[in-house]
Amino acid sequence: MPNLQVGPTVQGYIQRAKAQRRVRVAVVHPCSHDALAGVVEAAHEGLIEPVLVGPWPKLEKLSEEAGLDLKGFERIDVAHSHEAAARAVVLAGQNTVQALMKGSLHTDELMSEVVKQASGLRTARRISHVFLMLSASYHKPFLITDAAVNIAPDLLTKRDIVQNAVDLLVDLEGPQMTPRVAVLSAIETVNPDMRSTVDAACLAKMADRGQITGALVDGPLAFDNAISAAAAERKGIHSAVSGEADILLAPDLEAGNMMVKQLVFLGQAVSAGLVVGARVPIVLTSRADGAEARLLSCALAVLAAGARSRR
Amino acid sequence: MPNLQVGPTVQGYIQRAKAQRRVRVAVVHPCSHDALAGVVEAAHEGLIEPVLVGPWPKLEKLSEEAGLDLKGFERIDVAHSHEAAARAVVLAGQNTVQALMKGSLHTDELMSEVVKQASGLRTARRISHVFLMLSASYHKPFLITDAAVNIAPDLLTKRDIVQNAVDLLVDLEGPQMTPRVAVLSAIETVNPDMRSTVDAACLAKMADRGQITGALVDGPLAFDNAISAAAAERKGIHSAVSGEADILLAPDLEAGNMMVKQLVFLGQAVSAGLVVGARVPIVLTSRADGAEARLLSCALAVLAAGARSRR
Repeated sequence: MPNLQVGPTVQGYIQRAKAQRRVRVAVVHPCSHDALAGVVEAAHEGLIEPVLVGPWPKLEKLSEEAGLDLKGFERIDVAHSHEAAARAVVLAGQNTVQALMKGSLHTDELMSEVVKQASGLRTARRISHVFLMLSASYHKPFLITDAAVNIAPDLLTKRDIVQNAVDLLVDLEGPQMTPRVAVLSAIETVNPDMRSTVDAACLAKMADRGQITGALVDGPLAFDNAISAAAAERKGIHSAVSGEADILLAPDLEAGNMMVKQLVFLGQAVSAGLVVGARVPIVLTSRADGAEARLLSCALAVLAAGARSRR
Repeated sequence: MPNLQVGPTVQGYIQRAKAQRRVRVAVVHPCSHDALAGVVEAAHEGLIEPVLVGPWPKLEKLSEEAGLDLKGFERIDVAHSHEAAARAVVLAGQNTVQALMKGSLHTDELMSEVVKQASGLRTARRISHVFLMLSASYHKPFLITDAAVNIAPDLLTKRDIVQNAVDLLVDLEGPQMTPRVAVLSAIETVNPDMRSTVDAACLAKMADRGQITGALVDGPLAFDNAISAAAAERKGIHSAVSGEADILLAPDLEAGNMMVKQLVFLGQAVSAGLVVGARVPIVLTSRADGAEARLLSCALAVLAAGARSRR
């Protein structure tokens, strides 16, 4: 199994995004150095056309202190972070921008505007979060979901989380892609005392019945059986997903969050986060992200927005 | 931060265990090639003095086929795996053996004998499982608990899980050790919608109040804040545990299990499992364990049993 070259793969996404038509992105309250520097970098790289939505005096001062040139960037002056979130969501609802990017406000503050019925951004689906993971120990990029938005999803929410991730991966990789989804648990058998195993059985059947489309879904699978065909073999598991999983569905936010952070902090993986299931992709970067991860998140949003505009 | 050299550290545990007085270990139903080979290897290494408890004709046949020499090994002939579990537990209750080792029977079959009131092996504590993890990405060995026995522990069970892990680490490292325990969640703040954060706050306070002893306990901590002082710093967290965690308490079995397997299968970590909280340590190895992990598990049981006998 050839291992993934992480650096070139990141660059691959970025180059593909740059080759697309530029996407207008409303950047919500980029009032910290990291947030503003990230936007400037993505714009200078030719990845996005930013619309800065924030209190202008604050942004002006920050850009001067940090030596960041905001010339030529579209700007919408608002009083505070709350208004920034509300205005940015309106821009997305009107299709004036094709993606949103969180700045230095709290995730909840942005998301509560996004999920309002009047926002025009909601779909029939629950909104969820995906991390694209690039690890030198696995032979291809994969998604971990949901490690950031849905705390303890029930079965129907998990269904939406899976479908959102599947749709994103097809947007990223093209319509020939049929993502393989591993529904993770601690064991491979169904045990009514462990809800994730029951949900896994249900999700696999939902894919059989067309309640989840465009994906091969199997579970319950323990982590090793999901990512290693040899491990699955040893347990006598015959699954089209084992060893080839593209999407790992975590049983809950905690398990997902720990997997992502462990891979990044002990495994030198690169991760990039995106909120999906709304009408536009939403870039969520964290303070801990490096420049590479921030650009990658933008690139994913651009690729996803581009695929949507062509549908 | 110097990285851990995994190989020498494993050998260090094994050498220390070999330097101790030999420990008698009842090996329960070692009727698969892996299980029997593991025992023979540990005995020949001078780690343990095995008492084989299993159906003798079966063991004889297996040893001949596999070319494993059982000469000199004490043996107790029983009819089947269930009787093997029951007899081994009696030997431990009588202090005829100082540790148990699971062979090729199901974990539940062995554990249901151990937890019976009449076994004499139960203590006031809940029984729990620990994995000792050796990763080249972290600067010291650490424990992940409970990734194998308690599915969804409540607060009092988590208290016992923590105390069991603390006691084991002190047994392994000596009485000068004050283990640092990170109670993991997905976030660092208390949120009543995420039970692990509430439990974490309670466990930290229980350590303050002497309901957990001999340890520094802090939480809720996200994975990165537990193992990286720099990550904690960025979040403004001041904790004696951050970056120096010796024990990671998982919120539930699923999260723990995924962390362990991810570290082993994507991070090339070595793990060794042990059941603690009973009067004797119980070695649980899995089919996926290599020779190194199997010997390490034995070494941990020997060190733990030795420390107990000196108390």
